[in-house]
Amino acid sequence: MADGALIIIGGHEDKMGERLILKEVARRLKGGRLVVCTVASHEPDGYFDAYRKAFSGLGVDDLVEIYVDERAESWDADKLSPFENAAGVFFTGGDQLRLSSQIGDTPIERSVRRLYERGGLIAGTSAGASVMSETMLVKGPAEESYRIGELHMAPGLGLLRDAIIDQHFAERGRYGRLLGAVAHNPRLLGLGVDEDTALVVEGRRMTVLGAGAVYVVDGEAATHSNIAEGQADDALSLFDIRMHVLAHGDGFDLDARRPAAAARDTAD
Amino acid sequence: MADGALIIIGGHEDKMGERLILKEVARRLKGGRLVVCTVASHEPDGYFDAYRKAFSGLGVDDLVEIYVDERAESWDADKLSPFENAAGVFFTGGDQLRLSSQIGDTPIERSVRRLYERGGLIAGTSAGASVMSETMLVKGPAEESYRIGELHMAPGLGLLRDAIIDQHFAERGRYGRLLGAVAHNPRLLGLGVDEDTALVVEGRRMTVLGAGAVYVVDGEAATHSNIAEGQADDALSLFDIRMHVLAHGDGFDLDARRPAAAARDTAD
Repeated sequence: MADGALIIIGGHEDKMGERLILKEVARRLKGGRLVVCTVASHEPDGYFDAYRKAFSGLGVDDLVEIYVDERAESWDADKLSPFENAAGVFFTGGDQLRLSSQIGDTPIERSVRRLYERGGLIAGTSAGASVMSETMLVKGPAEESYRIGELHMAPGLGLLRDAIIDQHFAERGRYGRLLGAVAHNPRLLGLGVDEDTALVVEGRRMTVLGAGAVYVVDGEAATHSNIAEGQADDALSLFDIRMHVLAHGDGFDLDARRPAAAARDTAD
Repeated sequence: MADGALIIIGGHEDKMGERLILKEVARRLKGGRLVVCTVASHEPDGYFDAYRKAFSGLGVDDLVEIYVDERAESWDADKLSPFENAAGVFFTGGDQLRLSSQIGDTPIERSVRRLYERGGLIAGTSAGASVMSETMLVKGPAEESYRIGELHMAPGLGLLRDAIIDQHFAERGRYGRLLGAVAHNPRLLGLGVDEDTALVVEGRRMTVLGAGAVYVVDGEAATHSNIAEGQADDALSLFDIRMHVLAHGDGFDLDARRPAAAARDTAD
């Protein structure tokens, strides 16, 4: 069976009002079970209840929380069985390094991957969005330009190949660090997702959903960067980046690296 | 005689330490008079003294403050005479709309322009940087993506043609509004200048000086924007923007719209 879908959310998705993004999650679950994985949080109390409330009335009644305090628990049978008949997983926010270090290369990760491979939905918000990257952003400067050496990256779950995801993007002024990440290796397409905004990925095709924008940073045609020869405190120098600002309804082809505008008559 | 030079500073230039940018201002004055124009401020007390101190020891001894409380004063002979033998003008920060509305199309503006046309230096920081634009940014969203209709622009002094300048750029997360400004008419090149960073412009050639970066947003090759048909609260959609991140020593040719990397052996 073909891979399922990813819903990559930039954090702070609407949980009380129109709930555009959560509705899309619910629609794709078709009444099936959603595993809410709160592992990214050091202090998970309240996360699960918040999502139970947020999903109420949307037809998502079979919600199960998975949390692991220590990595060793990722082998526990009772943490794995909820995935068996699940229709989707939702990674909540927190620290993406907790997600990758606690569940990376464990049976829980393999359960997530199998669910995806049999056509399931993998959604994640904030840290849960970042972790879907192949190489993921962990920490970096906000509200300042990128300086060489200031970025902390790590291997992510790799559900989305050839891309690096950042979240809370415009709200936390993370342009500099995403440009810095792309400068390291333009093979990775930079994807900056605003709050209350999501990328819905099916195969190699993405669509934007929500109130903000998604920034696509394409370094393929870049002609110069000082990232290898600069000093640690030097500001980044990087020429000929192609950038796209995508809004609700806009699409993007990850293989062709080309955007497609929302059809006007279907825009809402 | 040829036009002089512009020094366009993104705000918060170092005034106590190495003073890289103020030294460049001083070097170009060659001991001549600097008119410190504090008109951008609603409350100018302290600005002039701060710059007198900041320039101390740099060989700038002939400093004169020009302030106008009301536009009518921009015709006063005693506000105009200091420009006659001046080597440069320094526009301090505040509100760029105060600058354009108080001195735009007055004898003070003409004095500034004449000084520039006879080879003088025009420096400006923060609001004093923005006002050099042809069409200038007055207000717009920070730390969020640009939404259609959210931008306040106005005619600037136009010392730098075909460009729109923004300042405190990475520090205040102003990417969204500069992208929005460029979307209005890609004829204007967007220039986002970080704090403690300057663009030194001579003719149509610019060089970056300082600790941060300068972002060049070139919309010439843009293939799509929703700015004309979108609704007021829609997020901007804008495809195929070319962006350059310029660091200390990097150059840019405004006519060719091409960057040039800092020579490695002259980098400091």
